[in-house]
Amino acid sequence: MTINFQSLHAPRGAHAHFALGWFGGGGFALESDRAASNDVYIGWKRGSQIACFPFFRNTQSVELAGFVGEQTKTSELAIRAFQETEIERRFLLATDTWQAPHITFSIATPVSGIPSPFAGNRSSSVTRSPRPTGEGLGVRANSPRLAGERLGVRANSPLPAGEGLGVRANSPLPTGEGLGVRANSPRPAGKGLGVRANSPLPAGEGLGVRDSLLPALPARLTLDNRDSTEPLQGFFAVKGMRGLQMLTGPLTGWRTIQGTGFACRPAPNVRAVSHWDLPNLFTPPHPLPFPLADMGVLLIDVPPGETFSLDFALGWYRGGVVTDGAQQLVYAYTRHYQNIETVLDHALHLAPELWDEARAWDERLLASGLNADRQFILAQSVRSYWASTMLFDEPGAREPRLRYVVNEGSFLMLNTLDLAIDHLFYELDTQPWVVRNILDHFANEYAYHDQCGISFTHDQGSYNVFSPRGYSSYEISAQPGCYSYMTHEEVLNWTLAAALYLHKTDDRPWAEARRALFRECYRSILNRDHLDPAQRDGIPDINSSRAEGVDEITSYDSLDPSLGQTRRNLYMAVKCYAAYLALAWLFNYLGQEDQAEQARESARLCEATLTAAFDPRLGFIPALLDGVDTSPIIPAVEGLAYPHRMG
Amino acid sequence: MTINFQSLHAPRGAHAHFALGWFGGGGFALESDRAASNDVYIGWKRGSQIACFPFFRNTQSVELAGFVGEQTKTSELAIRAFQETEIERRFLLATDTWQAPHITFSIATPVSGIPSPFAGNRSSSVTRSPRPTGEGLGVRANSPRLAGERLGVRANSPLPAGEGLGVRANSPLPTGEGLGVRANSPRPAGKGLGVRANSPLPAGEGLGVRDSLLPALPARLTLDNRDSTEPLQGFFAVKGMRGLQMLTGPLTGWRTIQGTGFACRPAPNVRAVSHWDLPNLFTPPHPLPFPLADMGVLLIDVPPGETFSLDFALGWYRGGVVTDGAQQLVYAYTRHYQNIETVLDHALHLAPELWDEARAWDERLLASGLNADRQFILAQSVRSYWASTMLFDEPGAREPRLRYVVNEGSFLMLNTLDLAIDHLFYELDTQPWVVRNILDHFANEYAYHDQCGISFTHDQGSYNVFSPRGYSSYEISAQPGCYSYMTHEEVLNWTLAAALYLHKTDDRPWAEARRALFRECYRSILNRDHLDPAQRDGIPDINSSRAEGVDEITSYDSLDPSLGQTRRNLYMAVKCYAAYLALAWLFNYLGQEDQAEQARESARLCEATLTAAFDPRLGFIPALLDGVDTSPIIPAVEGLAYPHRMG
Repeated sequence: MTINFQSLHAPRGAHAHFALGWFGGGGFALESDRAASNDVYIGWKRGSQIACFPFFRNTQSVELAGFVGEQTKTSELAIRAFQETEIERRFLLATDTWQAPHITFSIATPVSGIPSPFAGNRSSSVTRSPRPTGEGLGVRANSPRLAGERLGVRANSPLPAGEGLGVRANSPLPTGEGLGVRANSPRPAGKGLGVRANSPLPAGEGLGVRDSLLPALPARLTLDNRDSTEPLQGFFAVKGMRGLQMLTGPLTGWRTIQGTGFACRPAPNVRAVSHWDLPNLFTPPHPLPFPLADMGVLLIDVPPGETFSLDFALGWYRGGVVTDGAQQLVYAYTRHYQNIETVLDHALHLAPELWDEARAWDERLLASGLNADRQFILAQSVRSYWASTMLFDEPGAREPRLRYVVNEGSFLMLNTLDLAIDHLFYELDTQPWVVRNILDHFANEYAYHDQCGISFTHDQGSYNVFSPRGYSSYEISAQPGCYSYMTHEEVLNWTLAAALYLHKTDDRPWAEARRALFRECYRSILNRDHLDPAQRDGIPDINSSRAEGVDEITSYDSLDPSLGQTRRNLYMAVKCYAAYLALAWLFNYLGQEDQAEQARESARLCEATLTAAFDPRLGFIPALLDGVDTSPIIPAVEGLAYPHRMG
Repeated sequence: MTINFQSLHAPRGAHAHFALGWFGGGGFALESDRAASNDVYIGWKRGSQIACFPFFRNTQSVELAGFVGEQTKTSELAIRAFQETEIERRFLLATDTWQAPHITFSIATPVSGIPSPFAGNRSSSVTRSPRPTGEGLGVRANSPRLAGERLGVRANSPLPAGEGLGVRANSPLPTGEGLGVRANSPRPAGKGLGVRANSPLPAGEGLGVRDSLLPALPARLTLDNRDSTEPLQGFFAVKGMRGLQMLTGPLTGWRTIQGTGFACRPAPNVRAVSHWDLPNLFTPPHPLPFPLADMGVLLIDVPPGETFSLDFALGWYRGGVVTDGAQQLVYAYTRHYQNIETVLDHALHLAPELWDEARAWDERLLASGLNADRQFILAQSVRSYWASTMLFDEPGAREPRLRYVVNEGSFLMLNTLDLAIDHLFYELDTQPWVVRNILDHFANEYAYHDQCGISFTHDQGSYNVFSPRGYSSYEISAQPGCYSYMTHEEVLNWTLAAALYLHKTDDRPWAEARRALFRECYRSILNRDHLDPAQRDGIPDINSSRAEGVDEITSYDSLDPSLGQTRRNLYMAVKCYAAYLALAWLFNYLGQEDQAEQARESARLCEATLTAAFDPRLGFIPALLDGVDTSPIIPAVEGLAYPHRMG
């Protein structure tokens, strides 16, 4: 497999990343709808030879030509990119390392989730203060009643033993087997993570809330000049850094007016310099600090015969109110860090722990028994997930009033609910409190009613603008195809997410507070089969009145009707089946056995309709249960993941 | 001449523009280093026919494809751009109008300068509070002593009669003749603008400080459906508007999270709608508000047989601290306007006056007698100037603590001094207080001393980052060529600017406060000829010690040594000659007749050297007075503009 692929190395909840890995560009992004693609030069100079990892497109600055005009010079420096064959890339769950002649570069990504900031607090507000959710983490049970089985595992625990990283049926993880439960795991197998003997992670509660919100990543550049009689200069250089300001005092590095930066601790052989490109950086009187130029550089002198390893940090910071519309919010990290200097400083302070934690996570995945492709998919998608996360707080609030958002890829929609149901598996393992946080904001602000009852909006806004209560940024009434309503699917998603959350966390007070809402959801789902109970067959038949006469759509809205249409859709029908089972579990959990039995009956009705629809000539159930369609669809089985997860 | 050229329609002091005119794109920009190039659709739909001005590149949205995937539809709408031959563009000093079948679009740009915000205030601070500078505006005198001649003209006066728009020798304006002094001018010729009879401008003091800082422009869209039996829909639609929020209540329109927006007053036939592109905008159930999409639209229904004219406003707003480095500042307009809604609301309120004022300025230029090319250059460059201006204030200060900045084009350097000397001619006519403001900040923060004495930095920072005191973002020690020091030229520029300011405004308290500094400048300029008075010949011979052994450069740094090198450079020598004359005027103004005579003697010495350098075989003075060079250079005469202006 090629090592030429882009990865988004990202802190948590900052909608930020440092893109690196693709041969052609990368670098810093903050609140961007795409991966950064600036030139990044990581390499060394010895004599007139410069060699870099191939993370750039240009060796000479385009901007520079605007300034120097007729004075453009050609450089006598030979700049070359390492060939792919010269580079070894070790792309693991939490660290990414490139090695080439005389140089090694590593960057670590935290993957352990944000511990509940409310742990230990008591609050009567259902919306604002999820109670501690560390409880029950890592516990897998077949019984819906977990109350007697809680283990005192820590809120910020890495991958809970005995649980996988989430999606299992139809997933890259082998069914019934999680990461870290093997004999050769660095963490002893057991029930939960209460057992700490021999753990490679730091003892105690792990990195706390403040540390987990740190919008920074540790990086390490190692230069090996042992085979030489010439001095070597190693460098980490990133283009596209507008408005550079040099960091001095306890930090050596650069920050930009755009809210990005990097720094190390002062050292006699390390300098912060800058220029437009490498040829100019190495032309006297340079290297010098030259903040007009947009390439910030850390430059390291390594004498002949020596090696040197530089630890530094990549950071992001955006202060002030950053959202608009229905909510004007700040990033939660601004409560803990005053500016990018404090972020970088703390990241350097924390670097040893961050590296230790990252390596422990790497080991877990390596020991998981997953094949290389599955390990790759997991490591890549976890990073992309974090790059899309935002944790907000209200400006000036005494106590944190947090709002967690996953920002949909290049579309930048806030908390798309039909995606929340996908990454919830990872969140339940790493930070279950955010699932509740998202569900609460949907319940309190983005629920609405149509002729069938309650449902939830497709999203909560877009481009950092929260949409008005009860409306998504996506759904349009009377709109055929894309941008129609997803009413039926979203009420299923909310219901399934709530059940999975409770199954995982045993958060009984929340379940009690939402008791009426679960009944409302059940009624709404039933009505979307048919308003007349006598005519129900367990699968979707009604379009929402919000859609105003056109078909509702599904999460697969950009595809043809075999997946795009809601009514009598197999993918939706299986999801209904899962929702009925989940509701049966929920009602049972809440002691409402009558309701539970009704929900089980609904599931059986759905199951019967599905079974009857199996076409022996085709060998499968067709995509649309309309007696006409004969398409097969893979997502037919998607809905089975939920009851599987819930045992 | 083609009408296909981009113009930057800009408010004052907001570093903002709306680009329109180029066939291919335009739209909103805020703190950008380039002209906006989003698709802008201004046109109409009648039946299935859509016609727009050609300010776009794409008829279908690229973003949309990401969403709809397989559901992409082809539109049955015929979209065409007007041909250049169908469009009449009237590009005047302050208004820009395009007319095509059934449609006229106009946009007005204020060109009258920001009145002194300090007028009427008294302050002992030389730095912070320029005193009223309306005095003397519009007065042209051959005598350096103006005290007895002040006229009570208004601070916010439009083009002062009897004065041109600035550059004259070697300029597009005919020598000795200003705008608005002709018999057919709408403003009676006379000494200053105290005479208001028959003035097309509103009586009174004109638009005040608050109004002049309004970051908004009035626009007007007129649709003519008189020849039709079908209804017509006119539209103004701009792409690239991320994070749309609909404006309601007293406004109908859109704003974005990026700080741009446009709005009109509510009217029964006008709607704010949005989508990704025109084909989708006109496909049912649309047109609707659809804030996920990035094309904000004002849509106007015009019944058959009618015409309709819509007044609306384009606005910008960026709150909070926007600069970094040595100064953390807010935009001055944030003191007067809370958000973009208040900006747009006030712009609609003010629109009639803004249009009246703009038309009066148009008339001036039309009546100026300048040929079409010169009128074009003037109208185009004035808009670009305003697009580059920034007026800052200190956050939370009780009294305004203003800092005026002209942001250098695509390089975004703050107050480049060798450009300030160029646009000062326009500023002295429209807002002389900003010249003093810029000079004060150079004197107080960006002055430095080398072996010859005082000089000033090339700029005050870049990309909204103010550089440390005494240093520019541009100059580098020991750097040959571009990015070397401009020490000698900048002390000339500061001296000339100060003299021109005082000559224009008769700001005697400021002159008194800067008395010692003028002497310092004179001494510094003399020393750069030679430190030994006996060896002086009036022209530059010394490189600054700040340049650390390499040649100083000039404003023409990107060209060859005939213009790029400071020492014995003809362009510089003529500028020295002008500076000596300016100092003679300054010392005379301050009653220091001995010093004045010395400065005149310095000018004579320089003149003698220059005259002696005339080469009769070449027919000109060579570019470098080194006895070797034989290049001719046009900027040789540039320095003569200053003594010419000062009479």
